[in-house]
Amino acid sequence: MAYVSFDSAKKTDFVAVGRLCIDLNANEINRPMEETTTFTKYVGGSPANICIGMSRLGLQTGFIGKVADDQMGRFITRYLEANGIETSNVTTDRTGAVTGLAFTEIKSPTDCSILMYRDNVADLKLEPTEVSEELISRTKMLLISGTALAQSPSREAVFQALDYAKKHGAVIAFDLDYRPYTWVSDAETAVYYNLAAEKCDIIIGTREEFDMMEQFERNPERDDRITAAKWFDYSAEIVVIKHGKEGSIAYTKDGASHRADSYPAKVIKTFGAGDSYAAGFLYGLMQGWDISRCMSFGSAAACIVISSHSCSDAMPTSEQVNDYIARCERGEITAS
Amino acid sequence: MAYVSFDSAKKTDFVAVGRLCIDLNANEINRPMEETTTFTKYVGGSPANICIGMSRLGLQTGFIGKVADDQMGRFITRYLEANGIETSNVTTDRTGAVTGLAFTEIKSPTDCSILMYRDNVADLKLEPTEVSEELISRTKMLLISGTALAQSPSREAVFQALDYAKKHGAVIAFDLDYRPYTWVSDAETAVYYNLAAEKCDIIIGTREEFDMMEQFERNPERDDRITAAKWFDYSAEIVVIKHGKEGSIAYTKDGASHRADSYPAKVIKTFGAGDSYAAGFLYGLMQGWDISRCMSFGSAAACIVISSHSCSDAMPTSEQVNDYIARCERGEITAS
Amino acid sequence: MAYVSFDSAKKTDFVAVGRLCIDLNANEINRPMEETTTFTKYVGGSPANICIGMSRLGLQTGFIGKVADDQMGRFITRYLEANGIETSNVTTDRTGAVTGLAFTEIKSPTDCSILMYRDNVADLKLEPTEVSEELISRTKMLLISGTALAQSPSREAVFQALDYAKKHGAVIAFDLDYRPYTWVSDAETAVYYNLAAEKCDIIIGTREEFDMMEQFERNPERDDRITAAKWFDYSAEIVVIKHGKEGSIAYTKDGASHRADSYPAKVIKTFGAGDSYAAGFLYGLMQGWDISRCMSFGSAAACIVISSHSCSDAMPTSEQVNDYIARCERGEITAS
Amino acid sequence: MAYVSFDSAKKTDFVAVGRLCIDLNANEINRPMEETTTFTKYVGGSPANICIGMSRLGLQTGFIGKVADDQMGRFITRYLEANGIETSNVTTDRTGAVTGLAFTEIKSPTDCSILMYRDNVADLKLEPTEVSEELISRTKMLLISGTALAQSPSREAVFQALDYAKKHGAVIAFDLDYRPYTWVSDAETAVYYNLAAEKCDIIIGTREEFDMMEQFERNPERDDRITAAKWFDYSAEIVVIKHGKEGSIAYTKDGASHRADSYPAKVIKTFGAGDSYAAGFLYGLMQGWDISRCMSFGSAAACIVISSHSCSDAMPTSEQVNDYIARCERGEITAS
Repeated sequence: MAYVSFDSAKKTDFVAVGRLCIDLNANEINRPMEETTTFTKYVGGSPANICIGMSRLGLQTGFIGKVADDQMGRFITRYLEANGIETSNVTTDRTGAVTGLAFTEIKSPTDCSILMYRDNVADLKLEPTEVSEELISRTKMLLISGTALAQSPSREAVFQALDYAKKHGAVIAFDLDYRPYTWVSDAETAVYYNLAAEKCDIIIGTREEFDMMEQFERNPERDDRITAAKWFDYSAEIVVIKHGKEGSIAYTKDGASHRADSYPAKVIKTFGAGDSYAAGFLYGLMQGWDISRCMSFGSAAACIVISSHSCSDAMPTSEQVNDYIARCERGEITAS
Repeated sequence: MAYVSFDSAKKTDFVAVGRLCIDLNANEINRPMEETTTFTKYVGGSPANICIGMSRLGLQTGFIGKVADDQMGRFITRYLEANGIETSNVTTDRTGAVTGLAFTEIKSPTDCSILMYRDNVADLKLEPTEVSEELISRTKMLLISGTALAQSPSREAVFQALDYAKKHGAVIAFDLDYRPYTWVSDAETAVYYNLAAEKCDIIIGTREEFDMMEQFERNPERDDRITAAKWFDYSAEIVVIKHGKEGSIAYTKDGASHRADSYPAKVIKTFGAGDSYAAGFLYGLMQGWDISRCMSFGSAAACIVISSHSCSDAMPTSEQVNDYIARCERGEITAS
Repeated sequence: MAYVSFDSAKKTDFVAVGRLCIDLNANEINRPMEETTTFTKYVGGSPANICIGMSRLGLQTGFIGKVADDQMGRFITRYLEANGIETSNVTTDRTGAVTGLAFTEIKSPTDCSILMYRDNVADLKLEPTEVSEELISRTKMLLISGTALAQSPSREAVFQALDYAKKHGAVIAFDLDYRPYTWVSDAETAVYYNLAAEKCDIIIGTREEFDMMEQFERNPERDDRITAAKWFDYSAEIVVIKHGKEGSIAYTKDGASHRADSYPAKVIKTFGAGDSYAAGFLYGLMQGWDISRCMSFGSAAACIVISSHSCSDAMPTSEQVNDYIARCERGEITAS
Repeated sequence: MAYVSFDSAKKTDFVAVGRLCIDLNANEINRPMEETTTFTKYVGGSPANICIGMSRLGLQTGFIGKVADDQMGRFITRYLEANGIETSNVTTDRTGAVTGLAFTEIKSPTDCSILMYRDNVADLKLEPTEVSEELISRTKMLLISGTALAQSPSREAVFQALDYAKKHGAVIAFDLDYRPYTWVSDAETAVYYNLAAEKCDIIIGTREEFDMMEQFERNPERDDRITAAKWFDYSAEIVVIKHGKEGSIAYTKDGASHRADSYPAKVIKTFGAGDSYAAGFLYGLMQGWDISRCMSFGSAAACIVISSHSCSDAMPTSEQVNDYIARCERGEITAS
């Protein structure tokens, strides 16, 4: 049974809106950043990674965002284009904003952290008047991401994109992707996350992210079913709640819950796991697969990314994901 | 037929959220402010005026807002209390914010203007965590006002109040009350007005205010019926669109439109007309009157206020309104 | 002996730079402001008051400042012009700044306070490029005031005015006039007060104001002579330190100290005492009087102002000051 | 003849105050930054580079500054310490500020540019109360740098450091180092540069930097002698004005001007030339050399740095500089 259906008459499969930034990944890993001296530059940002992932998986994709008027901004736009992503709605800031940066520190495969540069970043300068209704009108699925809600005018641009998506019947997915930078308070965060989530068909986040959204409500046991039910009263059809090592559970409006097997991986770092999972999962939904298969496919895609040095650049094709699953099933891959 | 119904089990009739400020009305009128030397101090702000009006009309009322920690703030709280308004949810700013001011200039009865002080004002510092769910849970009607959406954290406080009102079944009225101060852009304004209006049962505004909300939509003829229909697709039951001298029209979800007669008045100034109209109209709805009678009552209340020097202090009792209507019908009052 | 000498070839006697604002004085006095309902509007701001005082005393004066583009700003400019003050260098803000306000509360003659509106005020928007070198080049004395140092770009405008005054040989007087509003920290305050004071010939302030300037230095006994000596090492010729009820002491570079008798007054409020004192004292210096006579004249001018409802509007002529002194000497005036 | 003399009883030779940041130098050079993928991390910032240079040349040095509370900040402090620089007055920001970044782009040896990250940087958060009077009291020479004047509270910290240096008799050098980032206006820039320069013994800058400081003055021919004479009227003994390829001229208070020969270099990039020149020149002054010899030594130090990939890390020892000069004199080094 398909919980969401896509308008096959629309030409563009998938459009993401939000953060576009640069990852600077330490080349010398398994040590603190104080001791690393060289970094490699990649395109980053959760919705960018997911969009690149969707494009690698073979979909027609586009991006709605804003880049700095500098070498970093041009690098991002060129990379998106080189990956087949439509950039007609990637605008350029003219106010002197910079490109957001994420320096990654990999002390060990399980001890990773990020040093963020999020002051005066171009991606948060996207104006609601810059969002293309035309692009959204011909798109099957729109993905929004929580960080784009963190500041004006990007916040308003996301609400305007949601308005266009509702008007034109796009399926809306919300990757919560909560990051504390630039939010003023927890209460502000909860208010806008909730206002956006009310309008979404698919909501994907960690248990902690849903907890943050429930600070004005009563769910003392942090019960997934109470969480999911709230959103089914609005627009949601599928709510995926991630429980870290215990795995993810997808709840559907019909009252069912869905799990999937996980795969082993030789982990280099944890960054990018959520983005590649989301890409794989949403790709599966667009293929009409059942929820468990979507989740398995997402898990395998995540395994490939966390076994690699980068996030965006490691996003797999569907052949690579299928091959990974096959190799796991043949016992050729074991955990690190 | 009642378009909206109120939960008679609730103890509080009416609660307003938003702006509380000080009006400083020129005592020497019919001249430019450069030539006035003395001013009289009144409590002001559209939702404050409406709430005072509702209290004068005999309802149980309360206010959700924030005042400065100074003489002006204490004056406001005392005035509300002296008018029988519950102030348990009027909090006091501790960050050094000031009380908003409105110096009024009355060059002639038809040429009035306001000099506003809206920098760092206490009313826009209301936090979502300060909004009392308990108060809203026992309230029949919640009124929100557009200026409270103009800045964070007051903007989030309004959305949180809306959330509580929906949860507890309060009827929600939205007095658009658009003022350009403190808004960053027209696009930002439209986005938040629309997000709030989606959740409201009764929306009251001028044609120009609805135009501002429709900048991302197509209504080239500025057609009231297109405007009203949009909100009936969300939560609205009644949409009142004011056309200045041509009078107001109330549209209802059943497709009907309603007008009322207007009354003559000896106009001193135009300030406060909309607030007293709103109080009278909403009061009528709470009495179960038909729409036209509500509109007439509001119009008569407005006439009384614009014939007086102040706004808040001139809000009439229901006896005064009924008496005014009776005198008009006897031909004892003619236009100035 | 004249401690400072003025260039008699210059056409303009006195120019002040800095704050121009509006005083709103409670008409109902001897009560808290919560209980006052009407206010009277006057021009205010310490350098404005001093300049008005100098003009009333018969000098050729001018002002360097910035007013809001509104009724309050126009009122200020007109009042200065009506008092014979050259306003060629009073510019008008075009950024939407407001006029600073000071609501005065007079609980008793000795218990007075001010409620200030200093957010986004026009007077602090004066740009260094707007300061007229031509005006300063033909001015005998320039007065600066501490509040104008409280924020950029007004701060830079004052330093530029000081630069022009040094270049063209104007005598520079510094009325410390420290107000905590808008300063970020005590350390910031001390740094800029000291940088400005280094360039001044005459420095007038309270003991507490000089203490604030000495926070990076050692003067544990708060010794006036240590304070004065520091400035004599820079440019100062006269340092006046006010000790409240114990009276003021003027220190001069030759090592002398000077006191003056005080006069009785029927005090209504304390506001404006310092400004009228400064006007009277500086006026005396420009007449070539000895320091004690300057101080007496300033004291008598102050008595006249504190016996009145306003500050600026009560600034006396020299005939009024002389008459006041004569009446005191005849025993016709006794303390309230 | 020695134009400046140093107090040999003081234990610390040289202390710099101001910017501490990170250079991220493109590893793949001679191409636009869009096409570079890896970067190497170095300590940067003009005063940091000069201080590292002085330490390499064998002097006892210290730094007054502020670093971010993150991996970048700790890297900077450790690098200074590893280079023998006292860091007792390098404080750590606790407000969430970041480390300033400079991504360098080397399109060709003569076409280099920098992409700066200067929003919310820790170095500009240095407070005047954090400047150590004790450190300055035992220092022979204090170096200030223009970028530290670009924002509060760092601006005030520099003025406080100047105050301590004057009080304790340290020679003060001012490396103008004008960068447009974070300054609000040219007028603001000129005002603070001039206020600081008034207090300095040695001023080093480009002709364009001095032009920027003279925007309120008349020097239409951009005459070096008019420029230098202004500062000799304040505290200056030596004013070095750099004319790019035409070389530098040092003016001294006695009316003399001094030039030096330049040396050939195999240039990789131009970054760091000014910093290494300043280090070499000031080092020479502290050795009591004549001005021309100081300038030659500075030029040779600059040649070494511009022939290398980094700035800070390439700062030479005095043996390296002497060796470079000797090899140039033997004709072993020719221009690239």
